Amino acid sequence: MTQQPIRFGLIGTGRIGQVHAASIAASPEATLSWVADPFVDGAHAVAARYGATATESAETLIASGEVDAILIASPTPTHVDLIEASLRAGLPVLCEKPIDLDIARVDALRPLVASTGVPVALGFNRRFDPNHASAQARVRAGEIGDLEQLIIVSRDPAAPPADYIGVSGGIFRDMTIHDFDMARFFIDDIVSVSATGTRTFDAGAREHGDFDTAVATLRAASGAIVTIVNSRHSAIGYDQRMEAFGSKGMLQVGNPLQNTVVLSNGHAVEARPPYPEFFLERYAEAYAAELGEFVKLVRGESSTSPTFEDGRAALILADAAQRSAETGAAVAVEL
Amino acid sequence: MTQQPIRFGLIGTGRIGQVHAASIAASPEATLSWVADPFVDGAHAVAARYGATATESAETLIASGEVDAILIASPTPTHVDLIEASLRAGLPVLCEKPIDLDIARVDALRPLVASTGVPVALGFNRRFDPNHASAQARVRAGEIGDLEQLIIVSRDPAAPPADYIGVSGGIFRDMTIHDFDMARFFIDDIVSVSATGTRTFDAGAREHGDFDTAVATLRAASGAIVTIVNSRHSAIGYDQRMEAFGSKGMLQVGNPLQNTVVLSNGHAVEARPPYPEFFLERYAEAYAAELGEFVKLVRGESSTSPTFEDGRAALILADAAQRSAETGAAVAVEL
Amino acid sequence: MTQQPIRFGLIGTGRIGQVHAASIAASPEATLSWVADPFVDGAHAVAARYGATATESAETLIASGEVDAILIASPTPTHVDLIEASLRAGLPVLCEKPIDLDIARVDALRPLVASTGVPVALGFNRRFDPNHASAQARVRAGEIGDLEQLIIVSRDPAAPPADYIGVSGGIFRDMTIHDFDMARFFIDDIVSVSATGTRTFDAGAREHGDFDTAVATLRAASGAIVTIVNSRHSAIGYDQRMEAFGSKGMLQVGNPLQNTVVLSNGHAVEARPPYPEFFLERYAEAYAAELGEFVKLVRGESSTSPTFEDGRAALILADAAQRSAETGAAVAVEL
Amino acid sequence: MTQQPIRFGLIGTGRIGQVHAASIAASPEATLSWVADPFVDGAHAVAARYGATATESAETLIASGEVDAILIASPTPTHVDLIEASLRAGLPVLCEKPIDLDIARVDALRPLVASTGVPVALGFNRRFDPNHASAQARVRAGEIGDLEQLIIVSRDPAAPPADYIGVSGGIFRDMTIHDFDMARFFIDDIVSVSATGTRTFDAGAREHGDFDTAVATLRAASGAIVTIVNSRHSAIGYDQRMEAFGSKGMLQVGNPLQNTVVLSNGHAVEARPPYPEFFLERYAEAYAAELGEFVKLVRGESSTSPTFEDGRAALILADAAQRSAETGAAVAVEL
Repeated sequence: MTQQPIRFGLIGTGRIGQVHAASIAASPEATLSWVADPFVDGAHAVAARYGATATESAETLIASGEVDAILIASPTPTHVDLIEASLRAGLPVLCEKPIDLDIARVDALRPLVASTGVPVALGFNRRFDPNHASAQARVRAGEIGDLEQLIIVSRDPAAPPADYIGVSGGIFRDMTIHDFDMARFFIDDIVSVSATGTRTFDAGAREHGDFDTAVATLRAASGAIVTIVNSRHSAIGYDQRMEAFGSKGMLQVGNPLQNTVVLSNGHAVEARPPYPEFFLERYAEAYAAELGEFVKLVRGESSTSPTFEDGRAALILADAAQRSAETGAAVAVEL
Repeated sequence: MTQQPIRFGLIGTGRIGQVHAASIAASPEATLSWVADPFVDGAHAVAARYGATATESAETLIASGEVDAILIASPTPTHVDLIEASLRAGLPVLCEKPIDLDIARVDALRPLVASTGVPVALGFNRRFDPNHASAQARVRAGEIGDLEQLIIVSRDPAAPPADYIGVSGGIFRDMTIHDFDMARFFIDDIVSVSATGTRTFDAGAREHGDFDTAVATLRAASGAIVTIVNSRHSAIGYDQRMEAFGSKGMLQVGNPLQNTVVLSNGHAVEARPPYPEFFLERYAEAYAAELGEFVKLVRGESSTSPTFEDGRAALILADAAQRSAETGAAVAVEL
Repeated sequence: MTQQPIRFGLIGTGRIGQVHAASIAASPEATLSWVADPFVDGAHAVAARYGATATESAETLIASGEVDAILIASPTPTHVDLIEASLRAGLPVLCEKPIDLDIARVDALRPLVASTGVPVALGFNRRFDPNHASAQARVRAGEIGDLEQLIIVSRDPAAPPADYIGVSGGIFRDMTIHDFDMARFFIDDIVSVSATGTRTFDAGAREHGDFDTAVATLRAASGAIVTIVNSRHSAIGYDQRMEAFGSKGMLQVGNPLQNTVVLSNGHAVEARPPYPEFFLERYAEAYAAELGEFVKLVRGESSTSPTFEDGRAALILADAAQRSAETGAAVAVEL
Repeated sequence: MTQQPIRFGLIGTGRIGQVHAASIAASPEATLSWVADPFVDGAHAVAARYGATATESAETLIASGEVDAILIASPTPTHVDLIEASLRAGLPVLCEKPIDLDIARVDALRPLVASTGVPVALGFNRRFDPNHASAQARVRAGEIGDLEQLIIVSRDPAAPPADYIGVSGGIFRDMTIHDFDMARFFIDDIVSVSATGTRTFDAGAREHGDFDTAVATLRAASGAIVTIVNSRHSAIGYDQRMEAFGSKGMLQVGNPLQNTVVLSNGHAVEARPPYPEFFLERYAEAYAAELGEFVKLVRGESSTSPTFEDGRAALILADAAQRSAETGAAVAVEL
């Protein structure tokens, strides 16, 4: 508390970058010092709002000497180079998921991460959602005995633009990757992946050979089985639920409600208002908590931040799911 | 089980009489022997369906020598005389509520009930509803500590015809009387009643100076307070809920649902299908259980049937509520 | 209504046979005429209770001339021969699932079924559950648009004895077969199956090389994906839920509750009483409705009874799931 | 937005004063300039935290010339004098409820409020709770037709210290006053009050002749009836629910949940975690929204802030309830 706030350098000022800027500004333990974006107008706008310095060059930001930690919120293909540059400057990194779409590039970076010892955290925000976090803590505490089955339902309100689909790496690397990490948050000994994907409604998925509907089944060495159900659209709004079934009971995570008002009439009873729109609304608290844990990591305190290795593991699972969905065969993984 | 079934004489073959006829026929411990109704076609129809003998005369039925117990489902003004005739014949009675609309007539009958020792049970079916019964048993078992507050919400789907309102004795004696008995099912030391009634939507209530909307507050010697909220109509269907609040927790009884299906879409989420229509659907199980307890009473076994005294107590509370709603003053009662 | 009741010959008087005997006895449109069981004491007990004739020989029952329809509730290996004998006697059959564990025997029987035109219905009782049936009807009515995903969760309270596991044909043919039929109740163009099974807690499963935990993923030609999640045990009681996700909304089927009472205290709030124990309690209504539809089938009326072909399709899916779980590869099916 | 933030003078730095200080600091439209408390250490602590000036004298604060609006969070007996001083200085006031415990003092202040035209808002925070506010807006929008019944359940986690009870003015003026305002938020033509109070568990209530359990029934000119159910303790945590029943449907406001996780096991199913502790947690959002509406009022914009007249009306209802609970007679009110 009496420590100096961590001075952040934020790289990337798109939608998610702005969320992080706001979290940093709201935290008493963090301050936004520098902002970089090749689209320099964006950098200037964010910098002005929070009293930071703007630049179009991430290199300039990293070399400024005025930042204690880097937050990478730029497009995926830039992540590996920016992590590397940060590590070489000795700066801890909180990087948005995924590390990269190509596991070879991730593996090439791995020795540097290991040798420098500088912390690299991955932006798996959902681990910090109070609902998921509470469920996980209660499972770990043994409240439902041995965990035998995990069902994760994850549906986005609407498919992204076709252009984005084309560079996204496919539904498993782009969307399911959050669910793979969530699976590992609960179960860490996954040994094989089996997946099925179809394209039923989204023109972008069809155009780029991607799936808009997908199911992945993960088998753990313990015999536990994880089922992930995804859709690129959802008429009911952002749908992120979970069910952890154990030998002694079951914990379920539901969608949060806009408010507690329920309506009954002659057509239906106990109807609730629609779910909150999308992840920025739903996971606002989670982003703040994620930042708090990363600050602890930077300060060398005990922290629950997911790491580079967690990011790599999720990508391996996504690759395996993609291959399984294409071949119809289960794919063994080593994480 | 190996005992002979109880032979029932059913008096009255209107809607509720037919319900009781079906319950008797379905029970392995009861059989329908005689049916009486001055509207003799109704008696014949019911008798034919279940292989009983029909008559237009209740006296004939009581004197037949072929019935072991009487079930009175005829109009309220006939109840007192029919109970008296049954008792003089030594026949146990299950009588629909209320005993009478006039407490003087009830009190006049009281000594005979006491002196004969022949059981008289009252048709407070709701005590046998599995939901209310479970809540009451759990309260009695101490699950919520001392019972401090009871809220009973009771709303009929639609107001009865204006003609019926005119002879009903008013909302408190006709409708709330069930809730007064429910209150006593949970709390037996009620000492005063305060009530408020208004007429807001029902022409029949206005025509006959009755209320269509009412609230009654009962104070117990223990300090517990019961609140009863009534309406003669309900756009959400038959609405019968309860909340028992105690020093250690709270038990709530909700409305049963038609089925377990819930709908979510962009307008509302987790919406349930409408509640079942009315008391015949909702309390079908309760009527069967009520009969079962009465059979035990007839056989001299331990039974939870509400008694003549329970019927009298509910009427005293209804009278007090009526007076309070008219005068604005709380009315003390001795039960 | 004015038609003569259908005279039933019941073969098999174990647990499920007794359920059917009770359903037949309770139906105004059916009567139990003959009962057969090689364990003739069981046959006599059931026959005595409902006024039927008992025999140890199914052949005698079929040849009696006193039955209009056959209900087969004997062990699975006898089903094919009994169906054949009934068909040759011109008697419609309601047969418990599965037809047989060996698709070759089912296929061998198929031409006879087709050529005689005598109705053969399969005992997929869950189609008649009011909850599942309501959800299916609403999906068919277009309430959620195009059906894109179906999640079926199905968990038995406790694993059967190891002996039973040994002759059960394995979890997919014994337990999941109900879920395969449920999948086809909603989606009829399934083209491939992928499955994962593990053994984590049940000694019987381990002993016989069976699974106690399983997930199956079915792909439809339309692109819809069905996910089935099974466990041989469930600490929360019999757990049978479903979620139908469509382009316009979602319908979910929950577990029925014992009653509507909820408890709140300092430890937890809005807690409901445990789910009903097992299928006899949960699906009591469904067995009655199943019989009603079979009666219509026997009478040549329009009926929703699942057929021999439905029984065969479910077995093909079970076989495919078994192979997929063993090999790790998705298996194409033609139904 | 481009307007200067309103400079607030906060009088009183107890628990609720600190909540308001935090809300002011968090709002981009408000700033905390001065803080007054005769317990000057408290004033200094709050002032230091938010960069304000501290004083022990409310008069000094009001006369500072550096505040645009006054927030009164001092003990109830000081409210009337502080409102008067603020008005004479031309400063708009947001005053915590109640205005005073003595309606005579409130009435004596009334002409000044009317003649100066300077806004006086009352701190009925619950109107700004998103749950209650949504329900009220939907009722006003006609979603449930004519409002016929309102049930308000309001229970505090634990009774306050006996000393506080002694100066609180009694449960109706201290606690129910919020519910009286909530009733008027929905229904503004209340004409009479009937109340029942008991003392069953709280030594402080017994010592000071107060009630710990209370029910109030309000009758509206329209015939609508409001029922308020209060307890000074609640084993289930802070319990604030509502049910608005209308001619076309019903809206219910439930307690918010800590998170969306539900637990099922062999003892109970679908159990939720305990409710949030008390009003500071539950109504955090409401306090911020309350401040926002007051800022609008100060700026002369359209605002939904409850007014001095609302504060007076709630006190009249509380007085009437107190008299009714003491005499047993309904009390007519003119608001």
